[in-house]
Amino acid sequence: KALHCQPMEFRSFYQNYSAHINTALKQILDERANQIPLPLADALRYSTLNGGKRLRPVLVYAAGYAVVNDQISLYQPNLDYCACACELLHCYSLVHDDLPAMDNDDWRRGQLACHKQFSEADAILTGDALQALAFELLSQKMISIKPEQQLDMIRLTANAAGCQGMAGGQAIDMSNNANTLEALILMHRLKTGALFKAAIGLGAQAVGCEDDKLLKGLDHFADHMGLAYQIQDDIIDFGNPQDSDSKNNKCTFVSFLGLEKAKLYLQTIYQQAIDSLNILSLQHKILQELLDHFIKQ
Amino acid sequence: KALHCQPMEFRSFYQNYSAHINTALKQILDERANQIPLPLADALRYSTLNGGKRLRPVLVYAAGYAVVNDQISLYQPNLDYCACACELLHCYSLVHDDLPAMDNDDWRRGQLACHKQFSEADAILTGDALQALAFELLSQKMISIKPEQQLDMIRLTANAAGCQGMAGGQAIDMSNNANTLEALILMHRLKTGALFKAAIGLGAQAVGCEDDKLLKGLDHFADHMGLAYQIQDDIIDFGNPQDSDSKNNKCTFVSFLGLEKAKLYLQTIYQQAIDSLNILSLQHKILQELLDHFIKQ
Repeated sequence: KALHCQPMEFRSFYQNYSAHINTALKQILDERANQIPLPLADALRYSTLNGGKRLRPVLVYAAGYAVVNDQISLYQPNLDYCACACELLHCYSLVHDDLPAMDNDDWRRGQLACHKQFSEADAILTGDALQALAFELLSQKMISIKPEQQLDMIRLTANAAGCQGMAGGQAIDMSNNANTLEALILMHRLKTGALFKAAIGLGAQAVGCEDDKLLKGLDHFADHMGLAYQIQDDIIDFGNPQDSDSKNNKCTFVSFLGLEKAKLYLQTIYQQAIDSLNILSLQHKILQELLDHFIKQ
Repeated sequence: KALHCQPMEFRSFYQNYSAHINTALKQILDERANQIPLPLADALRYSTLNGGKRLRPVLVYAAGYAVVNDQISLYQPNLDYCACACELLHCYSLVHDDLPAMDNDDWRRGQLACHKQFSEADAILTGDALQALAFELLSQKMISIKPEQQLDMIRLTANAAGCQGMAGGQAIDMSNNANTLEALILMHRLKTGALFKAAIGLGAQAVGCEDDKLLKGLDHFADHMGLAYQIQDDIIDFGNPQDSDSKNNKCTFVSFLGLEKAKLYLQTIYQQAIDSLNILSLQHKILQELLDHFIKQ
């Protein structure tokens, strides 16, 4: 059912939509469960329905809300497909990143990583299947938007997932080639930023936005939001010996810049993100508060 | 440039299109190479441009040819996207299947497997990136077909790749749950057959076929062709101690049925495939000879 969205406070927006996406993800996996071979069906649910922050799905809805405000419920099926697709891609990347050959993390979101709870083979296949499921959802019938636009949305997402996006970013990370600030920024742009950009681009297009200037502006915001999110992550993790970057001697914004300069850099990127929103003619309150929520925590 | 296709003998059809797909794959990877992080760019080319049989791409073109005959060159960009996407998905599945946690094969197509030539992390990411690239290609602008149909084609392919297709089939294989003939057939339907069906469905739809009866008939043919291909594979591998199924004590059609009954079963499935082609109003010569080529070798 459609969610009541107007007037919308940030806190209830986030709570409503993160609860909603959990329901939607569960429904999608349950619908398919009896046609999926058993170990894989369990591993898919285990790796997806595990209480993530659901930031990327909420970005999808927030971008949709920014464009059409209280008309958002008219496009809910589209937004649900896009939001679920983004979260499935995110979950797939976590499952693969945790593998012994990658970051070798045994824990994820307070529970055993997929490859520990099941097997490495199951974890590889779970990630593979989650990626395919994301594209299955993005190619479902959407309402009130042109199919040409939906093809653009799929291409945007495939780019975000592939070698010029998440997979490419993780490859830079694994090869320890992010040994300059520029390379570190590129790595995060690909590894994290690309999916942030896809989430916001999908949300805007899922409600029919075809305004190139607006889409480019949102893309610029998403790019800076992704970068700010990562710098903040490095600042929070600084000094934590359990952090996987510390364990693996990875370069971070703090190791490059020092803590104080990293905080200043975060402020600069944050302000650029806000500025890029403010010049756009849309209802940007929720997007801005979402950025604040993650940066000023 | 368009290939000359009429009159077309099977042998030259196969030679032309398997050479053509090698060129197309190389071009796609070269075009993107300087935007892809280095170890990944090399691993993508290594795992793709390595002299495979290119059966799935040729199936795409053969299905297109069956529907529109000498008009095939009008749809060549569409067919190229579809053919490359199918081969990239196939290559991705080989790279992941070879991993130590899966079938643990060190060799592939006469060269070191991707995870031996590069690293396990590179191999996981190469597979991930190849899958994303397949969907990027399928969402490129196609000509003379409806965008709605292109969305159907993407959904067909995503289903073939995911938990009710290739990933699901490999999960059954890994869990050694294919311990009845029915389960073995289901495993191969998902692991191999789904992509055969997608290849043929994509090829027909890439040339604009919207005739449900024809598409269902081709799907039936593809399903039987996939099964016949797998039975034949088991017959050829029977008694070969280097074969990965033998090494891993996997059930095969020969281990279930014995050699003679497996051969009879192959004949039955082969005949059903031929029968399903013969009732369709299309130019099925190339598709039939393709089946013969792989079954009667």
